[in-house]
Amino acid sequence: MLLRLSTLFVRTLREDPVDAEVASHRLLVRAGYIRRAAPGIYTWLPLGLRVLAKVEQVVREEMAAAGAQEVHFPALLPKEPYESTGRWSEYGPNIFRLKDRKGGDYLLAPTHEEMFTLLVKDLYSSYKDLPLQLFQIQTKYRDEARPRAGLIRGREFVMKDAYSFDVDDAGLDASYAAQRAAYQRIFDRLGLEYVVVAATSGAMGGSRSEEFLTPTPIGEDTFVRSAGGYAANVEAVTTVAPAAVDWSDAPSAHVEDTPDTPTIDTLVALANAKFARPDREWTAADTLKNVVLALVQPTGERELVVVGLPGDREVDLKRLEASVAPAEVEPAGDADFAAHPELVRGYLGPGVLGPNVEVAEGAERTAVRYLLDPRVVAGTRWITGANQPGRHVFDLVAGRDFTADGTVEAAEVRAGDPAPDGSGPLELARGIEIGHIFQLGRKYAQALGLTVLDQNGKAQVVTMGSYGIGVTRVLAALAEANHDERGLAWPAHVAPAHVHVVAAGKDPAVFEAAESIATTLAGRGVEVLYDDRPKATPGVKFADAELFGVPLVVVVGRGLADGVVEVRPRVGGTAEQVPLAEAPDRVAELVDDLLAD
Amino acid sequence: MLLRLSTLFVRTLREDPVDAEVASHRLLVRAGYIRRAAPGIYTWLPLGLRVLAKVEQVVREEMAAAGAQEVHFPALLPKEPYESTGRWSEYGPNIFRLKDRKGGDYLLAPTHEEMFTLLVKDLYSSYKDLPLQLFQIQTKYRDEARPRAGLIRGREFVMKDAYSFDVDDAGLDASYAAQRAAYQRIFDRLGLEYVVVAATSGAMGGSRSEEFLTPTPIGEDTFVRSAGGYAANVEAVTTVAPAAVDWSDAPSAHVEDTPDTPTIDTLVALANAKFARPDREWTAADTLKNVVLALVQPTGERELVVVGLPGDREVDLKRLEASVAPAEVEPAGDADFAAHPELVRGYLGPGVLGPNVEVAEGAERTAVRYLLDPRVVAGTRWITGANQPGRHVFDLVAGRDFTADGTVEAAEVRAGDPAPDGSGPLELARGIEIGHIFQLGRKYAQALGLTVLDQNGKAQVVTMGSYGIGVTRVLAALAEANHDERGLAWPAHVAPAHVHVVAAGKDPAVFEAAESIATTLAGRGVEVLYDDRPKATPGVKFADAELFGVPLVVVVGRGLADGVVEVRPRVGGTAEQVPLAEAPDRVAELVDDLLAD
Repeated sequence: MLLRLSTLFVRTLREDPVDAEVASHRLLVRAGYIRRAAPGIYTWLPLGLRVLAKVEQVVREEMAAAGAQEVHFPALLPKEPYESTGRWSEYGPNIFRLKDRKGGDYLLAPTHEEMFTLLVKDLYSSYKDLPLQLFQIQTKYRDEARPRAGLIRGREFVMKDAYSFDVDDAGLDASYAAQRAAYQRIFDRLGLEYVVVAATSGAMGGSRSEEFLTPTPIGEDTFVRSAGGYAANVEAVTTVAPAAVDWSDAPSAHVEDTPDTPTIDTLVALANAKFARPDREWTAADTLKNVVLALVQPTGERELVVVGLPGDREVDLKRLEASVAPAEVEPAGDADFAAHPELVRGYLGPGVLGPNVEVAEGAERTAVRYLLDPRVVAGTRWITGANQPGRHVFDLVAGRDFTADGTVEAAEVRAGDPAPDGSGPLELARGIEIGHIFQLGRKYAQALGLTVLDQNGKAQVVTMGSYGIGVTRVLAALAEANHDERGLAWPAHVAPAHVHVVAAGKDPAVFEAAESIATTLAGRGVEVLYDDRPKATPGVKFADAELFGVPLVVVVGRGLADGVVEVRPRVGGTAEQVPLAEAPDRVAELVDDLLAD
Repeated sequence: MLLRLSTLFVRTLREDPVDAEVASHRLLVRAGYIRRAAPGIYTWLPLGLRVLAKVEQVVREEMAAAGAQEVHFPALLPKEPYESTGRWSEYGPNIFRLKDRKGGDYLLAPTHEEMFTLLVKDLYSSYKDLPLQLFQIQTKYRDEARPRAGLIRGREFVMKDAYSFDVDDAGLDASYAAQRAAYQRIFDRLGLEYVVVAATSGAMGGSRSEEFLTPTPIGEDTFVRSAGGYAANVEAVTTVAPAAVDWSDAPSAHVEDTPDTPTIDTLVALANAKFARPDREWTAADTLKNVVLALVQPTGERELVVVGLPGDREVDLKRLEASVAPAEVEPAGDADFAAHPELVRGYLGPGVLGPNVEVAEGAERTAVRYLLDPRVVAGTRWITGANQPGRHVFDLVAGRDFTADGTVEAAEVRAGDPAPDGSGPLELARGIEIGHIFQLGRKYAQALGLTVLDQNGKAQVVTMGSYGIGVTRVLAALAEANHDERGLAWPAHVAPAHVHVVAAGKDPAVFEAAESIATTLAGRGVEVLYDDRPKATPGVKFADAELFGVPLVVVVGRGLADGVVEVRPRVGGTAEQVPLAEAPDRVAELVDDLLAD
């Protein structure tokens, strides 16, 4: 394959696109791989499409190796199956909905659990037909509230989604393990570092799920790891609650004047100044912070709740959303406080929430639900709002003086927190979710009536798994992991070409030699990008070569007078001066080495 | 490649699907290649997807050979570019429209002229960048009023769309010729018979277009051919108007009582009975039929018109629609006649329409536009309605007694009509449109501002072509052209496999021999579908083999006792008894022959 830059449909940009925050987005646009068509919606140019096809091919091969069969579903689908499982409403504004000319409701599918379930129901009826794994590589749609980071969070994107169908739990375990292993091979082959972490299932439902994350500081997901092998998305971390504390010798709660202390910092400062205790200073960890939030259901129904958590932790909205899915969470606004005068902003405490502390004069006990961080166990003692402006209550004891309507995982996870499985303190890192595998269990099969007859002729509900890879996102993750300040630097097996030949000079001999190397290599099956542009300067050509990121660069230029060309890797390694006649052999050899990795 | 039927995700059906009118639809569903997901929207099962991939590969290779570069645009696109060219409204209810969560207007693209134009504008600026040809193989959407015939007229379908960009008309001619030649190679390689016919451009606009039709009685398109080489879609046929006739010795028009003659047949019968002329009988060709129709614009605006044409011809709604595009045409209804009492149903004539015949007492001259068939030239003499119930006017002379608001191509084309280029009488046939190529000219570039600087530094509007192949429709056309009453019968290069090995019997030796042949062939690169189902009877397996349509069938069965297997083509040819040990060689040889065709 020989691509000539003189005719290739590509233009590089020297300037970063204004909306690009991350390197993959910036460089894929600048190098002419993709182009924005609308927010979160991209056009693929020839170089980008070549990389995408190579990534898809790796995915396709490993799916086949895992025993999954390829099918292809429509993107445009009728509402009914998604209504049967509740997802039509659960997805809320996150899916694109439309009507056809007859008024029928349709959606652009975000994933295809329902359709796969119905198709298997349509074709299969016996336990002998199972196990079954199906997959597709297909264009998916999500109407993201905030499409961002180019291909990383788009609204139209390519996904590989696979589904497994088994008669029993052991079968599901085996299918899940096969897909999990295929994912490991895929990311290994792509040279993409990954961690597998426990995850929450969100709108997908099901009992167990794991995410494949590629670690990068620009990742949207935060995950934790312990030295003892625990790994999870922060959304899936369950808080280790301390043991309850004996409160028998705790003093009674007492309300104090704490003027001008609407924040934890000002409260702690005042507590240490006015109410110092002998043994140690007050810290934020001694305070109980109460945050008013709204849970918004996909139907639009909006419920205020108050979340109580230790004052040294912030609320992590994504963790809270994972706990209350499919609801989304938003901060309470002025209108909420106006509607609930009993919630005294800045001085809010469980006094109006729990049953056991007297309600201040003129205040009402609220009907807003109160949810507590799991760390606030019975017997713990807190400084917290007294539900009156400028006043806080001290020595308020959980379980004795207040209770809650439940606990909730809303607090941020911090480095050093204990792993839930006791395997040591947690480290935090950021990553991009590149794969997600779910044991769905029987949720979809039950809702849509997918059963098979077992050995005894009895109908059994099928148990399912669902396995996704964001193919376009993987491409972006590869760009994130393989670039420098000058451009992209693709691994050989996904690069748009293996070799970039640069005719660097004006002398016809330069073009003649470069042409000869390029065509010789292409004739031997090497994929060549050849910069044959007659007018571009060597400087422009070198800059473009660095932007494109083809792994090997062959420069035919000044050295030609001495009968040599330069062969250099795009990153790392050193440049070699190779005699012209030997160049094709040497380059082909280097390409083989790169592809063998 | 070895596909085992024991695990392949497929089920054949013995019964035709109730909604299937044509063989390709019926057989592709029954053989488990596709499955309906919604009206005009299909899911691809493994066998279907394999055929589709092969068809796509032929298209991709020939596009590359023609110099077109592959890109990929989104299906979900914002309204604005389509509004700039007027297509947002021109497509009327034929496109799927939707809003995103922010209320922005989007569509599911029916074709991508606008986006390609904008992308080239974005990247290119000089005449030196041209010529350029780009293509994509992509999923497209049209909200057809009547999706039908399975893949032939769907609402979600795969299309190859290519676009050419040139600085001048000669360049466009060359690009058009290159694409036209590529289309011929594609259909030749697919073994699909085709004719290239002149066509109308419809909502696409532009100056010249041709369709590739594959002849079949179930085709939706009617085309004409003359012995002299003229070929056109009937929609593109222009009527040969006869020369004007001298009316100087024509008698005056006279109104006669013609009770109970609301149809042409009854009118002709009465004319011959009551108003016989000496030289010859009256025929329908002597009458002028006036048909009330409504033109419905994409905006919904509805205009009544009366179309006058010789009484021996019917109105061809598709021809009329091509003439009045983007308007659609519908018959007038009771409400229309109620609103226009001057249009006397069954006795309507140009008297209320043209200026020269006196309006009957009590009747009003209508404001409804009157459009005439081009055959109704000045001097032609007609029997037509007198705009009074039970009365017709005789010897009404066009040009003398009535005129019209214009002519229109609304009458059906009939076998024997003269070719517009004088190349002889026309024959009619039906076909499926499998490709359509357009010289768009400067319509899109003008609307969207795509210019390049020429040699003199002057901005020139680019001239464009647009070239489409309905890939999924081509697959259906292949199935139409390659089947018999028992099932599909694919050409080898698009078949889902080259060889179908049937283990026909219960003896373990049968399975052992079949397995050996299947794996040996697969190991030699032959694509094998192996029916290894342990319980299915030979009869079921043979029926399925005929349904699937793999070109070579190898039966391992009764002959095994004599050391032979049967090798037979799915259609034509004769069965051979081949010694077991020689079977792989012989089959591989036959496959090579088939693929060499």
